Amino acid sequence: MPKLDAEKLELFVRELFRVAEVPDEHAAIVAEHLVTSSMMGMHSHGLMRVTEYLSYIQDGRINIHAEPHVLRDTQASMVIDYGYYLGPVCANDAIDRAMAKAKEYGIACISARRSAHVARLGAYTERAAHAGFVALAFCNSGKHGHFVAPWGGREGRLATNPISFAIPTDDTAVICSDFSTAAIPEGKIRLSLQQKKMLPESAVIRHDGASSNDPADFYGPPRGAIAPFGGSVGYRGFALGFLVEVLGGLLGGTGMLDEAAGNGLGFILIEPGFFADREAFTALVREARDYVKSSPAAQGFSEVLMPGEPEFLACQRVLREGIELPDPIWESILEQAAALKLEVPDDLEVTFRTRMQEPIR
Amino acid sequence: MPKLDAEKLELFVRELFRVAEVPDEHAAIVAEHLVTSSMMGMHSHGLMRVTEYLSYIQDGRINIHAEPHVLRDTQASMVIDYGYYLGPVCANDAIDRAMAKAKEYGIACISARRSAHVARLGAYTERAAHAGFVALAFCNSGKHGHFVAPWGGREGRLATNPISFAIPTDDTAVICSDFSTAAIPEGKIRLSLQQKKMLPESAVIRHDGASSNDPADFYGPPRGAIAPFGGSVGYRGFALGFLVEVLGGLLGGTGMLDEAAGNGLGFILIEPGFFADREAFTALVREARDYVKSSPAAQGFSEVLMPGEPEFLACQRVLREGIELPDPIWESILEQAAALKLEVPDDLEVTFRTRMQEPIR
Repeated sequence: MPKLDAEKLELFVRELFRVAEVPDEHAAIVAEHLVTSSMMGMHSHGLMRVTEYLSYIQDGRINIHAEPHVLRDTQASMVIDYGYYLGPVCANDAIDRAMAKAKEYGIACISARRSAHVARLGAYTERAAHAGFVALAFCNSGKHGHFVAPWGGREGRLATNPISFAIPTDDTAVICSDFSTAAIPEGKIRLSLQQKKMLPESAVIRHDGASSNDPADFYGPPRGAIAPFGGSVGYRGFALGFLVEVLGGLLGGTGMLDEAAGNGLGFILIEPGFFADREAFTALVREARDYVKSSPAAQGFSEVLMPGEPEFLACQRVLREGIELPDPIWESILEQAAALKLEVPDDLEVTFRTRMQEPIR
Repeated sequence: MPKLDAEKLELFVRELFRVAEVPDEHAAIVAEHLVTSSMMGMHSHGLMRVTEYLSYIQDGRINIHAEPHVLRDTQASMVIDYGYYLGPVCANDAIDRAMAKAKEYGIACISARRSAHVARLGAYTERAAHAGFVALAFCNSGKHGHFVAPWGGREGRLATNPISFAIPTDDTAVICSDFSTAAIPEGKIRLSLQQKKMLPESAVIRHDGASSNDPADFYGPPRGAIAPFGGSVGYRGFALGFLVEVLGGLLGGTGMLDEAAGNGLGFILIEPGFFADREAFTALVREARDYVKSSPAAQGFSEVLMPGEPEFLACQRVLREGIELPDPIWESILEQAAALKLEVPDDLEVTFRTRMQEPIR
């Protein structure tokens, strides 16, 4: 597992997309997104996707010639069709438009259709929170991703449908939550199957409708389903998953039975300055955060961390120490570079020497 | 346990509040709210509150002379201070104002401060959904209700902070979800203690930070805390609980350390007609609902029910059969009636005869 310099790696990934004919400013957005997700330890929303995105560009599932089409534009709302352009670029564009509207009206809602895979939803709410907005985001997927059973059901009817929200602070770390409305992501079930490990209790539903913690019961055959999140109150996770369909899909006109690929997005942004004094609001957020964090730790924990804080700390550590990238992901990126005839810079790896030099500078 | 005619009971409860000097139209709102919650089986947000509200009116904790004060009013946003007026009246007023704004701007957000206890949050999102809006609601409580530990913590820092949302349909039953962000409500812990039953696994946290399913560990002494909802992924419930503080409290200027009583509310309303054709939207909702409900049932279930459907079915049954009201609640209402010198109508109880007559009409 190589340890790579995050900043240099980002430049290299950007170059990969640029060579694949993605405009440089968009290649930069995608590279920054994927490297940051990997810095947070989320390779499945990070560098694991480099190969996938590049192959989708090749076969046209990502259309790098698409332009955003505004289907409907009112004062505080907008519907945009992105025609399967690169997800992180679409989502950044949509949230930027939402910010402009929320700045003027205090609140805004944007529905984005047919974006290609947007990867880490929290990146976009975070972006808005850094600019001072309270942001909520809902992201659905097409019918092919319907692995998650409704509460009380045994067949998949929903995708893992994540929800994210972020809250501005007076600090460099905003408060950001980003989670799936399924009990467990499909990727983790696959990993547990490979490692012959059991899942958390009742994480999946067997084809005959029985609860199970065996990853093999999900894959079958016959195929099972993933449970909605919430355990014995899984009707809550189901309800949230359905809300994601409404705000991420139906609102923009995409039905649950449409064979749409990629992601549908719903963004709701609030400008706190329209409600109370903006500085007073950030002061209240600080007070709330300090108060919540002042709870002594439960057993098995060392302290209370706010939503997004573990990921923020992981990024800071990686900036000092380098990204540890699993060999298969790194090898797949090297293959792409070879195929695109792009030379790999020889200073990507963080060496012992580099790290030792740092205190001297 | 008497079985009471829901409609006649509602008129009687309305009369009780009217005699307690609540204006008749507001007495009607409160009575309708409490009776409907009880019809859904939620007495803790229903008729159990009659005595509490009447005693709070007496001691001034509910101020029946308060007027709503609009603190800030922009196009799509508003902050209102209700001065501890009757909760269901405040919340109805706030959501009506939100509807008027969402109708004009496609989306609106209203922050309501210092409402007295609003009871069932879902009643308000449902009201908006019946009028055609997608509605989200967030409701916080004062510091005295901070029983719920943050994820990783062992002391209460949040209230049970419910979230509700509702989605319009082309049917009499809207889709409505309404749930607490705590693993379990305090009322259920109390009941389990009385009945010497154990709680679901890890529902509470003992004073020393250990997970527990013993209701006695919550009450102590030393006092423990309720876990956030989500089980092994309880960071999600915690994050949602914190979001409720932000949208229900901080946004309107109420801090988490303020000694505010009652509830703070945040409403976000969306008019789907601003995004796509409104009839097309309801058609997509119907298609989505039918598709989700088409999943065969899991073991232990007879069918998939949408959020709000169990409560809707309960109401329909009660309208036919009458409300079964636990004796202590009914007796407390009778005591209030006696204290207010209000005669109890003798036709409240559903008799065998009444029920037998129905098919004849």
